[in-house]
Amino acid sequence: MFTKEIEIRVRYAETDQMGFVYYGNYATYFEVARVESLRALGMSYKELEKSGIMLPVLEYNCKYLKPAKYDDLLTIKTTIKSIPTARIFFDYEVFNENKELLTIASTTLVFVQAFNKRPCVAPEQFLEQLRKYFHQNQ
Amino acid sequence: MFTKEIEIRVRYAETDQMGFVYYGNYATYFEVARVESLRALGMSYKELEKSGIMLPVLEYNCKYLKPAKYDDLLTIKTTIKSIPTARIFFDYEVFNENKELLTIASTTLVFVQAFNKRPCVAPEQFLEQLRKYFHQNQ
Amino acid sequence: MFTKEIEIRVRYAETDQMGFVYYGNYATYFEVARVESLRALGMSYKELEKSGIMLPVLEYNCKYLKPAKYDDLLTIKTTIKSIPTARIFFDYEVFNENKELLTIASTTLVFVQAFNKRPCVAPEQFLEQLRKYFHQNQ
Amino acid sequence: MFTKEIEIRVRYAETDQMGFVYYGNYATYFEVARVESLRALGMSYKELEKSGIMLPVLEYNCKYLKPAKYDDLLTIKTTIKSIPTARIFFDYEVFNENKELLTIASTTLVFVQAFNKRPCVAPEQFLEQLRKYFHQNQ
Repeated sequence: MFTKEIEIRVRYAETDQMGFVYYGNYATYFEVARVESLRALGMSYKELEKSGIMLPVLEYNCKYLKPAKYDDLLTIKTTIKSIPTARIFFDYEVFNENKELLTIASTTLVFVQAFNKRPCVAPEQFLEQLRKYFHQNQ
Repeated sequence: MFTKEIEIRVRYAETDQMGFVYYGNYATYFEVARVESLRALGMSYKELEKSGIMLPVLEYNCKYLKPAKYDDLLTIKTTIKSIPTARIFFDYEVFNENKELLTIASTTLVFVQAFNKRPCVAPEQFLEQLRKYFHQNQ
Repeated sequence: MFTKEIEIRVRYAETDQMGFVYYGNYATYFEVARVESLRALGMSYKELEKSGIMLPVLEYNCKYLKPAKYDDLLTIKTTIKSIPTARIFFDYEVFNENKELLTIASTTLVFVQAFNKRPCVAPEQFLEQLRKYFHQNQ
Repeated sequence: MFTKEIEIRVRYAETDQMGFVYYGNYATYFEVARVESLRALGMSYKELEKSGIMLPVLEYNCKYLKPAKYDDLLTIKTTIKSIPTARIFFDYEVFNENKELLTIASTTLVFVQAFNKRPCVAPEQFLEQLRKYFHQNQ
């Protein structure tokens, strides 16, 4: 199991008139969280795209337990629970500074060859890095 | 069962460098779709908030089948399948101009009293309007 | 002089916790306003990009006179005051339903060839359409 | 003169299908830049709002010199060139990792009492902090 924590400060632009983070804006936080997870595993998503592989989102599920507020310094904990094949699953938990769990979410993404949009296996170098974390934890 | 269709044209701002609508931007389309559904049922969400009732999102699930593209004139079909109590469930389908189904989603929202953030039943006038559609279809 | 009015309803996503439209979100309204202006002149921006010409923004100026609010049905009035060469200038005025002027803005964009990013003249067919409006008004 | 530099990494959500940061998204970067400038001067914008003072934007001007790209680690340099009265002026410069100047912008904001929306002078404690930087530089 691989886990990675990042911090994101809530921007004013991300709030709505309810005074909370707009429900649609968490998707961006999770994008940042998984891109930084990949980076921690030696994979730059930018470089991945340049190499001809894209990673679109197939499915996204999110539960809103408590609201995040303006200027909150959120901690996003990302977990990869299984070695990906063509598909890769991320789980996310969002905490505020009081360690309250605000949001639980998951996404399914698929490695796709840009030129034909067909699914492909995750890059071997990335899998190698990822396997280390699984060995460590098992 | 109540259904309502609206059209939304994809803005350039909503695309990403993959050339598609960013996965996080559908949440805004669904917001527009459900607000227009409520309006068609005689309930202005703006007025609802002014009356002291808010309708935050508790849960959001979305499956991305095919990408939406810049300038696509999308049709969002919203369905309310059951009479709400404190919670209200919306289902959404997004189609492009070729009638291709692009996205399937659902949200759970809860009627909440603004002053104490406690769940409350949906306004009676709204339920009355909504019941008509259920009688028609049953 | 060419003018075109469009209507945009303010989305909840576009408000911030001040209860107004976030100052950064007007740029998207102006994008929609100028794209619809181009469409009214027979030019689809989507088709323009497909033909190998892009129209990036060089400069953007905006004055916020009064706030726009959630669910406001805004009227955006777009004006093209001069026949474009490589550069095209748009002026915008945003009104609410009470005809109050909320925002004044202007943008400068440049026609650019996608393959070498070099400025180029506006498509002749578009200029032809645009000239009609100038003859009409002079 | 007060200057403050912050770093912002470009999110995928912030790009558009041109492959660059969407022109409307810089406004959010400048929001972050000025809020962090205020924080460096001992003023939390969140606390300012709680104390009954808001700081809406009156005017925003932006020149786009070169595009910012996905995953770029941008440096935003914010400058306050004069001691504010009711109005406060911020200038911004955006650089990429190659020290290329991408964007130049400025905003005018106004200190406003939330209860009557009337302009008011900047908080004395904030002005005191700010004056130090001016003495240092003159």
